[in-house]
Amino acid sequence: MSETTLTAKTPALTEELRESPFMRACRREPVPYTPVWLMRQAGRYMPEYREVRARHTFLEMCKKPEVASEVTVYAAHRLNVDAAIIFADILLILEPMGLDLEFAKGEGPAIHNPVRDARDVGRLREVEDAGALEYVYEAIRITRRELRPHIPLIGFAGAPFTVASYMIEGGGSKNYVHAKRLMYTDAGAWHALMSLISRALVGYLNAQVAAGAQAVQLFDSWVGALGPDDYREFVLPHTRSVIERITPGVPVLHFGTGTAALLELMREAGGDVIGLDWRVRLDEAWARLGDVAVMGNFDSVALFTNPEVVRRRARQILEQAAGRPGHIFNLGHGILPETPVENVLALVEAVHELSSNKSLESEV
Amino acid sequence: MSETTLTAKTPALTEELRESPFMRACRREPVPYTPVWLMRQAGRYMPEYREVRARHTFLEMCKKPEVASEVTVYAAHRLNVDAAIIFADILLILEPMGLDLEFAKGEGPAIHNPVRDARDVGRLREVEDAGALEYVYEAIRITRRELRPHIPLIGFAGAPFTVASYMIEGGGSKNYVHAKRLMYTDAGAWHALMSLISRALVGYLNAQVAAGAQAVQLFDSWVGALGPDDYREFVLPHTRSVIERITPGVPVLHFGTGTAALLELMREAGGDVIGLDWRVRLDEAWARLGDVAVMGNFDSVALFTNPEVVRRRARQILEQAAGRPGHIFNLGHGILPETPVENVLALVEAVHELSSNKSLESEV
Repeated sequence: MSETTLTAKTPALTEELRESPFMRACRREPVPYTPVWLMRQAGRYMPEYREVRARHTFLEMCKKPEVASEVTVYAAHRLNVDAAIIFADILLILEPMGLDLEFAKGEGPAIHNPVRDARDVGRLREVEDAGALEYVYEAIRITRRELRPHIPLIGFAGAPFTVASYMIEGGGSKNYVHAKRLMYTDAGAWHALMSLISRALVGYLNAQVAAGAQAVQLFDSWVGALGPDDYREFVLPHTRSVIERITPGVPVLHFGTGTAALLELMREAGGDVIGLDWRVRLDEAWARLGDVAVMGNFDSVALFTNPEVVRRRARQILEQAAGRPGHIFNLGHGILPETPVENVLALVEAVHELSSNKSLESEV
Repeated sequence: MSETTLTAKTPALTEELRESPFMRACRREPVPYTPVWLMRQAGRYMPEYREVRARHTFLEMCKKPEVASEVTVYAAHRLNVDAAIIFADILLILEPMGLDLEFAKGEGPAIHNPVRDARDVGRLREVEDAGALEYVYEAIRITRRELRPHIPLIGFAGAPFTVASYMIEGGGSKNYVHAKRLMYTDAGAWHALMSLISRALVGYLNAQVAAGAQAVQLFDSWVGALGPDDYREFVLPHTRSVIERITPGVPVLHFGTGTAALLELMREAGGDVIGLDWRVRLDEAWARLGDVAVMGNFDSVALFTNPEVVRRRARQILEQAAGRPGHIFNLGHGILPETPVENVLALVEAVHELSSNKSLESEV
């Protein structure tokens, strides 16, 4: 999106939302304080979430719009963050494409018919309008009604590489042997798969926008398994094709981890906001990225300490971002399940307090 | 080590060894072909290794010098690589320090009394001469006798951060919650632990040199979990203190993964050869590092393809290193257990062939 397009009208974009700190930061406009939200803010670390989760499987939570909406709204209000992200999963898109997805208790996702070769790719279904994911759109509609009217709602999907890797590996992976083997030995099948996924993602994300999301995030959580040359050849064109086709005016947040050597290429692939994990210094990474907003950088594991440590580390990041519009505070990755809630609350409070009223200077 | 020190005499360093391609590359001198060895080259992917392993536990293999030596020598000869690395484990040093180490079948290492706080650190034993690890030195002595006389033998240890993390986590870890919590909340205990480990490592590595190792490698396999600021504060001084005290004249190989944002700091910590994983381009990383040798960069997972793909990818790396002395070919991390042996053989052959006789230019 160019800056001009970003000011364009998008569905559900009220004046209040358009001028919210989060949306202003996406457009790199000055903000009264640094907006903050946290990946996986509605998650297992939160007792109220665990209560809901005890009554439903994970997939049920995703597929019942009232439940997905409830945890989304609750987390955003409880934490006092500046954006909500719809409760869903990057693997939901696999089902309409013909994959048999299960979230086994305590074992993470499993795909019982993984994609291993060109023939498997050929069997996948083309998903044009992602109508089968109506439950996500309905959750977004409900959430948009329930959320405070100045809090933007983020829709999301997995980026093509991460989705493809899950499809091929059949679940979580340490070394991505199957995914890389396909990539390195059958580039035709790889690109066909990535194109198919990319087309599905465009429909899915734009339908989330139409339902009421003010921004969308692409999670390329696993892309750090690749070096720059592989990223350029096997990933970049596909991620770009998704981002280019997102509804004009809707900011795209482009996230990955382990991306210290990929940042320029991720920027080239697109996005209004580039996610940074905790393995880079924010100032150095942002200098390399140039004119784009950034998000992330706080080490999720530092939430396992105490409010003082949390505040000190938040401050270090804010100092690196100071004076440059376009910073959205977030973690480098998602909140971990055992994280103490009090430290999460302390983080949000510290970001708001330290980034407003020039307190960054006054408290040195 | 400065270049001058590197030319100094070290134990067991015959003229033949001193002028071997591996040792010349460590000193950034011209070589007739690019020397290559592979991390975990004596490992489970090799049927002959599995045969030996079937008769011993992993720890027994480490503790029986004849067995450790046998697999070390066999792998180096079978693969026709330009250096051997002694068969051992980075966690062996934990036992003399007072930790209860076990390699449970198929589950990786477990430490039954992990270090969690300052009191636990206080209970650890100071290990000055690492005499308890005599079995490693004996394995080195035997190996030095059995190896072809022009093949250098590499000794090794875990780097302080990786060893400390294992001690604290009690085994493998995904997020390093315990290690980082100690680091962030009790810097005194953290530094005490790292100093204790560093002192032990110096004695251990120098004893390996005295026994007949021509070079030593520090494995900081887990250091990619940290950002640059944490590395500088919590790791760099300790790694440096180890490297500075290695017997003069002995090249130090300093290895890590996920280090794209840490390379300059690793260089600052020291080492004659800096390890690169597969997530960076070799040429870009080497340009950042300056006057030091480099090693690594080939994606271990690309060995799950076929000899043609292996050769093409080896060539891409050799092209990036061409014309600059000081490149040792290796993987970005260790060989994975299921790797087809034929592809490993193809890799070594490709490196030798493509890097000699100007074949890099002639085969374009």
